[in-house]
Amino acid sequence: ISLSELVSFPVNFLDHTQHKGLAVAVFGVLLCKLWGLIISPNPLPFITDTENKQNWVILGVFYYPALYYPLLACGTLHNKVGYVLGSLLSWTHFVVLVWQKIDCPKTPLIHKHYSLFSSLPQIACLAFLSFQYPLFLFKGLKGTEKNNVTEVSFYLSAVPLPCLLQVCCTGFTVLIVWPAYITNLIQVSVGLLLISSVLPPLQIARSGVDEDVANLLASFKIMLSPDKHEVVRIVVYYMWCVEVCYISAMTLSGLVNLAMLMRSMVLHRSNLKGLYRGDIYNVYNCQRSIRASRPALVCWMGYTSFTAAHICIGMIIQTMVFFLCLLIAVFLIIIPVLHGQNLILFQILGSMWPFWLMILLAVLVQNVTGRFCFIRKTAGTRDLDNRGNLFLLTYLMFPVNVLIGVLLAVWRMIITALFNIVHMGRMDISLLNRNVEAFDPAYRCYAHYLKIEVSQSHPVMKAFCGMLLQSMDQEESNAAQRSRDAEEGIQLVDQEKKQRQVSSAKRARRHWQLLYTLVNNPSLVGTRKHFQCQTTESFLNGSLNRSAKEGSKKEAATKEAEAVAGN
Amino acid sequence: ISLSELVSFPVNFLDHTQHKGLAVAVFGVLLCKLWGLIISPNPLPFITDTENKQNWVILGVFYYPALYYPLLACGTLHNKVGYVLGSLLSWTHFVVLVWQKIDCPKTPLIHKHYSLFSSLPQIACLAFLSFQYPLFLFKGLKGTEKNNVTEVSFYLSAVPLPCLLQVCCTGFTVLIVWPAYITNLIQVSVGLLLISSVLPPLQIARSGVDEDVANLLASFKIMLSPDKHEVVRIVVYYMWCVEVCYISAMTLSGLVNLAMLMRSMVLHRSNLKGLYRGDIYNVYNCQRSIRASRPALVCWMGYTSFTAAHICIGMIIQTMVFFLCLLIAVFLIIIPVLHGQNLILFQILGSMWPFWLMILLAVLVQNVTGRFCFIRKTAGTRDLDNRGNLFLLTYLMFPVNVLIGVLLAVWRMIITALFNIVHMGRMDISLLNRNVEAFDPAYRCYAHYLKIEVSQSHPVMKAFCGMLLQSMDQEESNAAQRSRDAEEGIQLVDQEKKQRQVSSAKRARRHWQLLYTLVNNPSLVGTRKHFQCQTTESFLNGSLNRSAKEGSKKEAATKEAEAVAGN
Repeated sequence: ISLSELVSFPVNFLDHTQHKGLAVAVFGVLLCKLWGLIISPNPLPFITDTENKQNWVILGVFYYPALYYPLLACGTLHNKVGYVLGSLLSWTHFVVLVWQKIDCPKTPLIHKHYSLFSSLPQIACLAFLSFQYPLFLFKGLKGTEKNNVTEVSFYLSAVPLPCLLQVCCTGFTVLIVWPAYITNLIQVSVGLLLISSVLPPLQIARSGVDEDVANLLASFKIMLSPDKHEVVRIVVYYMWCVEVCYISAMTLSGLVNLAMLMRSMVLHRSNLKGLYRGDIYNVYNCQRSIRASRPALVCWMGYTSFTAAHICIGMIIQTMVFFLCLLIAVFLIIIPVLHGQNLILFQILGSMWPFWLMILLAVLVQNVTGRFCFIRKTAGTRDLDNRGNLFLLTYLMFPVNVLIGVLLAVWRMIITALFNIVHMGRMDISLLNRNVEAFDPAYRCYAHYLKIEVSQSHPVMKAFCGMLLQSMDQEESNAAQRSRDAEEGIQLVDQEKKQRQVSSAKRARRHWQLLYTLVNNPSLVGTRKHFQCQTTESFLNGSLNRSAKEGSKKEAATKEAEAVAGN
Repeated sequence: ISLSELVSFPVNFLDHTQHKGLAVAVFGVLLCKLWGLIISPNPLPFITDTENKQNWVILGVFYYPALYYPLLACGTLHNKVGYVLGSLLSWTHFVVLVWQKIDCPKTPLIHKHYSLFSSLPQIACLAFLSFQYPLFLFKGLKGTEKNNVTEVSFYLSAVPLPCLLQVCCTGFTVLIVWPAYITNLIQVSVGLLLISSVLPPLQIARSGVDEDVANLLASFKIMLSPDKHEVVRIVVYYMWCVEVCYISAMTLSGLVNLAMLMRSMVLHRSNLKGLYRGDIYNVYNCQRSIRASRPALVCWMGYTSFTAAHICIGMIIQTMVFFLCLLIAVFLIIIPVLHGQNLILFQILGSMWPFWLMILLAVLVQNVTGRFCFIRKTAGTRDLDNRGNLFLLTYLMFPVNVLIGVLLAVWRMIITALFNIVHMGRMDISLLNRNVEAFDPAYRCYAHYLKIEVSQSHPVMKAFCGMLLQSMDQEESNAAQRSRDAEEGIQLVDQEKKQRQVSSAKRARRHWQLLYTLVNNPSLVGTRKHFQCQTTESFLNGSLNRSAKEGSKKEAATKEAEAVAGN
């Protein structure tokens, strides 16, 4: 085990074909710990100083990633020592946590079992690790461990390119697991907190309702019933309704977030596909350069965390809003209808029937006359007819339309608020108007994140590196280099380019492959130069320099292709 | 005076070059009446039945347009009798209203002077009418009344077409007066209501504060000061602050709406220009056919009223939100800072300094390392560098980034809510995400309204009609037809097309004019057929039928042009 291998980070977040089970499990543990850190009065173990909680939280924020780092590092040494160490470490963490929970299952925090339940995801993650490491060890002993070269050969087998693009897109399932897992974990954590912080107090209050409540209500001049037992029964029933509303609101919020996650995945996949195709305008609604930059990198680093935070805040707000809406629905509509009393809302709406009738008639009249009197169809085209009467109707309907406009404005407000609340947890769409999309910080972050993802993990680029690697292997039969992954392959090409001159026929074939690739994947042109300038002739660089400055990538690719064909 | 002239509506709302002073004034009076109808307990004069207010309001909604219709109708008879009648009517309305207000300036409604102030815009409108009609009469006697043919000649002088388009766009100032006027009227009305319903009660309460307040506060265990006089002084001061906040919020809301109105005008103008050029995708963010349809017509009829209602609701919500924000700012920030006590907010923020420092440092570290360590610039391209360390930093920063994400989510919520509240009164932008824009009812209505505006008042179409009219005049010297306006000109062409055969040279010249127009204004192709099919040969219709079905208007125009050129 060399020191550099231990120090350099073991997981390549940019390579979505890599197996990320270990990383996902460790991030899950970390997220649970962070959650516990914020909720618990004693953020760190062995420290009971609750006065300086804030400082301990800040310490914990950096302590836990360091604590669980070995769990991650052991997994990617790719040898038996690493797996043995990993197994021992994960077993230790697992046993310590389970022992803690068995020893002290009840805590005074929020609810007596909250601490136990909230550690379940963490236990599951550690159990996964404890199972995975021995499995790796077992596979390693049997010599069936997959080599990283499979990734390259996976891409190679998928050439020709359009087919390759499709195969790579189905490979997104791995990529999709990542935010989905984090989302579910956050959902469980937030849901647990929301349930355990509100329901038990409500239940205790409900069981404690006695005839004093009737006196209390009477002092506020609220008379639910002349009989005190009846009052107690009604109050208990109402409190039960509130509980049901709360649980429904939370379930609804969870389901909404799950649905949003599904839609996010679909959109992300189509965004990636679009950007791989160079279809920048459709994704961003403006022209942008897809390449690494400082803000893009910062947003990429924080994206998973930001998603977690947005879903957390989104779920809390959604639960509150849905709870309020359900309360209104239950106490103003359902209960009055069921018991046939206190029909306040219906009485108000009913007494306004002439108003509703007028609105309905006005809308109807405008639609019917609009359909039959004012539009003339002549030989397939439509034009206005009876203009004088149209203007007269417009004038007469002016005051009524103002009233309709008030209803429309209220409806607009409701629909806008609801849309934004439901989509609060989604970072991949902007909640603002299309012209000011970038002012939405979450969407801005996603747009930058997408840049890095596309520019650094383009499947065709990887396949190209793989092909270069393979052709070198054929020439030099350098078997040791076969085990490097695609990214290392790029550096490899850099290092060895000066050592030999390829034959003219091979060069021609490569030029044609390059041409085909660039024409079909214009988005590659911008990222191409830094590893291409060393393998093709210098006169090509000239044409690339010129073409790279032009806005349209497709055009540049075609020019490039022409230059290559000319050679 | 023929009966048909009296019955058909006198104002052409679709012709933005017409002088609309009369119509604007009458709509203003109508809007003020509607406002009074809703606010006042006695909606109709001579009726004091306050129990069935709703029914009287509904009656009034239709009664007032009918009452003021003669004011509008007299103006467009274009002869002395009409102007004399109009003068008499407007003087009567004016005198009756002024006499009412002088006779009974104070009402118990909301504020003693509210009724007087709220009728000022109405008095202004009627005064304008009373002044305008005698002016028309005077001009008519002197024989200097402008003939409508000036409009046609205005367009004719502006050919060639690109120049024409520009001239027409500067003509929008007339069009812009319409919504601006309605907006200002609504602003004044809403502002007046907001001020007079809240400020006087607050002022009365402020003047009535005495030492009992100290006892009242003491019973709630709020001790502002040991001295009772001091308590009274503080309470009065706080109430004065609340009043200042309220007035500021209302002023701010008014200014915001004025600014939004300016932006609306700019956007509307650029939208119209874009659609005249056939640039549909940029305006609607999707391809649509610009022609009259039932929903488009219904939306067009209601657009002005809906705008008024949206601005009204928008101003009320804005005032409430700004008032709340200002209250928080004043009582949590400004007053504590000025008096150096109760610095609760600052104490909370100050005690969290390690947290803020951590967030700041984390953001700084990520930005600095992102700039200097992880991005490599080679020969003009940028690529990631030190990937291992980048992934390690991403892992270590995961928990901190979750906390940053929470702040981002809160910021997103604030900015989204603020944007939507500020833009509540604007119908010309959607408050929703770009993919679901059409779910915003207000924007949907504006999109439809724009269709009718563009398809029915395209300046080039009008100029074309003018040219046709002129060439007919030259041939037949039919002077009587010269006084019809452009729209009537279209019908004219329909009626007289069978009566003569134009010479071959003239036809060729017309074909070339048509070609030039269509190539430069592709959006005209869709609306062209119904009046073009009767003036050109039938074989052209065939090509038009084919081309009209194709999506791209530009393509259709080019094909059409080719067909014309071929002839």
